[in-house]
Amino acid sequence: MVADETRAETASSRRGRVTITDIARRAGVSVPTVSRVVNGRSDVSPGTRARVEELLRRHGYRKRAAAPGRRAGLIDLVFNDLDGPWAVEIIRGVEEVAHAAGVGTVVSAVHGRSGDARQWTRNLRARACDGVVLVTSALDPVLHQELRILGVPLVVVDPAGSPALDVPTVGAANRSGALAATGHLLALGHRRIGLIAGPPRLQCSRARQDGYRAALEDAGIAVDESLIVPGDFHHESGFAACDALLGLPEPPTAVFAACDQMALGAIEALRRRGLRVPQDMSVVGFDDLPEVRWSAPPLTTVRQPLADMGRTAARTVLRRPRDERPDPPRVELGTDLILRSSTAPPPGAAASD
Amino acid sequence: MVADETRAETASSRRGRVTITDIARRAGVSVPTVSRVVNGRSDVSPGTRARVEELLRRHGYRKRAAAPGRRAGLIDLVFNDLDGPWAVEIIRGVEEVAHAAGVGTVVSAVHGRSGDARQWTRNLRARACDGVVLVTSALDPVLHQELRILGVPLVVVDPAGSPALDVPTVGAANRSGALAATGHLLALGHRRIGLIAGPPRLQCSRARQDGYRAALEDAGIAVDESLIVPGDFHHESGFAACDALLGLPEPPTAVFAACDQMALGAIEALRRRGLRVPQDMSVVGFDDLPEVRWSAPPLTTVRQPLADMGRTAARTVLRRPRDERPDPPRVELGTDLILRSSTAPPPGAAASD
Repeated sequence: MVADETRAETASSRRGRVTITDIARRAGVSVPTVSRVVNGRSDVSPGTRARVEELLRRHGYRKRAAAPGRRAGLIDLVFNDLDGPWAVEIIRGVEEVAHAAGVGTVVSAVHGRSGDARQWTRNLRARACDGVVLVTSALDPVLHQELRILGVPLVVVDPAGSPALDVPTVGAANRSGALAATGHLLALGHRRIGLIAGPPRLQCSRARQDGYRAALEDAGIAVDESLIVPGDFHHESGFAACDALLGLPEPPTAVFAACDQMALGAIEALRRRGLRVPQDMSVVGFDDLPEVRWSAPPLTTVRQPLADMGRTAARTVLRRPRDERPDPPRVELGTDLILRSSTAPPPGAAASD
Repeated sequence: MVADETRAETASSRRGRVTITDIARRAGVSVPTVSRVVNGRSDVSPGTRARVEELLRRHGYRKRAAAPGRRAGLIDLVFNDLDGPWAVEIIRGVEEVAHAAGVGTVVSAVHGRSGDARQWTRNLRARACDGVVLVTSALDPVLHQELRILGVPLVVVDPAGSPALDVPTVGAANRSGALAATGHLLALGHRRIGLIAGPPRLQCSRARQDGYRAALEDAGIAVDESLIVPGDFHHESGFAACDALLGLPEPPTAVFAACDQMALGAIEALRRRGLRVPQDMSVVGFDDLPEVRWSAPPLTTVRQPLADMGRTAARTVLRRPRDERPDPPRVELGTDLILRSSTAPPPGAAASD
C-alpha cells in the first residue's frame, strides 16, 4: 500500500501534475466521485467531499483545461464586500470589456460569509467560468488554493496595494497621487498641512503617506508629526481626525485625507464648528467617488481610475489561457488630481496677515 | 406552398406554439440552423440569422423549457445604466438571494448600446440563464419580445413606477413616501414648502407629487403652484430649482426634493448663497442613497428599499418556472422616512417672529 502510494506519487510528478485517478486512489473512492467534487456537484456525501477536497488541496490538484474553444462565456467578479461605494465603478469597467468579448460578468460577494467561502467556490466550479477577477486587499489563502484547484485564470484588483501576491494584480499609483494632492496645497500657499492617514497595515495607506512626506520635503518643509492623524478609511474616522487637528494649539490650514469618505467626514466636522470650506480650511480627498462631485462643496480629490482598473483586470483575465502561469505582473494605473471647490489659498494669504 | 404554410400554421397553433421545425420551413433553412440562432451560436451567416430572428419574433416563438433539474445556475441582472449610484444596492439584494440559492448573478448594462441589444440577447441565449431581472423604467418592446423568445422568467425592478407592463414588476411606495416626507415638514411647523419635482413623464414623479399635495391638503394648506419646480432627477436641476425657489418674492422655508441627488443640489445652492441647512432652510430627499448619510449635513430622506427590491425580484424570478405566465403581479415595497440633520423648525419658529 505504501509502495503503491509512492508509485502513484512518482507517476503523477512525472506527468507534472496529480490526476483525479491519483486522488481517487488516495481517498479510497471512485474516479466519478472525485470528478463530482471537482465539478461542484451536490450528490456527494459531506464526509467524502471534505476528504476529497482536502486531498485536492494538499496535492495541488488543478483541473484540466477545458477543450479549446469550449468556453463558458463567463467571468466571475468577486468582492469581499458589495457595500463599498466604488464597487459599481469596478463592475462597470469589467462588464464593459467582458460584454464586448461576448462574455457575461457574474458578480458576487464573499463578505460576511467566510464560513461558506467553500460554498462559493462550489458554485464557481458548477458554472465552470473562464476566469476570476477578485477585488480585495487581502487574498484569503484558502480561497486562493481553491481557485488553483479550479485552474482558472485569476486577477486581483487591489485598490489597497497589497505586497506582491503570486497572481497578477491591478492597482493605482498611490504615492504619486498623494504627491500631487499635497503639491497642490503647497502651490496654493499652505505651509501647515494635516494628513488624515489610512490604516498603516495597508500598503496603499503607507504609499499615500510617503507621497505626502515627499511633497513636503521637496518644498523644504519639515514634517510635523502632530499633523498626521490616523483614520480607518471610514467617514467617522475622518470626522474625529479633523476634530483632533482643529484642537491642536496651531491647527493646519489645509487637510489631505487619504480617502474621500474621510474627506467628507472632515468637511462635516468643520461645518459643525461653523468653519467654511475652503475659506477657513482646504480639504483634498483621494478616490474621486461619484458623489464627491456633489458634496458641499464639490471635493478636490485624486481620481483612482476604478473603472479602468476593472477594464484592465477583465482584459488580463480574458487574455490568460487556463493553466498558464507567467511571472505575475503588477499593473499600477495612473491617478489624476481633480480640481473642484474645496481648496483655496490659506486664510489671510492675500492680506498681509 | 400557401396551403402548406396554412397547414403548418394550424399544426403549430394546435400545439399552442410555433416550433423550430415550423420556423425552419418558413425560412427555407435546416432545423439545426434555426437551433443555432435560437441558442446564440455564432456559426450562422448574418443574412440567415436576420431572417430567422425576424420569423421567430413574428411567430412569437418561445424556446422549450429545459429538462427539469437542468438549470444553468445563473440569473441575468440587466441595467439600462450602471452609472446610477443606487445600482450597487440592487445588485447587493439580487446577489444575496441568488447566492443563497446556489445561483450566480450575471450583471450587465445595455446603456448606450441600443444598437446591440440584439448582441446582448445573443449573449444571453448562449449562456441559457434561468431568469432575467431587468432594472428599467422603460421596457424596450424589442428586448421584451426577444426575452419572450428565450422563454425565461422575467421580472422588472422599476424604481420609476411605470404603468402596468405585461410582466411582474417590483417598485416602491412613492406616494406614501412623499406623504411622510411632507408630513414631517408640516409637523415641524413649515407652511411654505417647496417641491423640486421629478420629470412628469415618469409615474414615480407624479406619485411623489401626489403625496406632497395630499399632505398639504390634509393640513388644510392650499397648494401654491409657484412652489412646485420641475427637475430631471439630476444634481444640477436640484441646484437650479432651489435657486428659482429662493428667487421668489416669498421663498419657502423648506424644500422636499423628489430624489436625493436633487436634494444635494439644493443644499449646494443654499451653501453658495451662504444659507445654512437646516437653520435657514430644511431639505428632505427621496431614495436614501448610501452617501447621504455623509452629506453636509446628513440628509433627512425617504428610504427606497433598493436592496429589498432586488431581493424580491430575485426570489420572484427564481420561483417562476419557465414558460409559466400568470397574471403579472405588481409589488410595491414600503418606504421609510429616515430622520437626520437637514430638517428643523422654520427660522424664527421658536421666537415670536
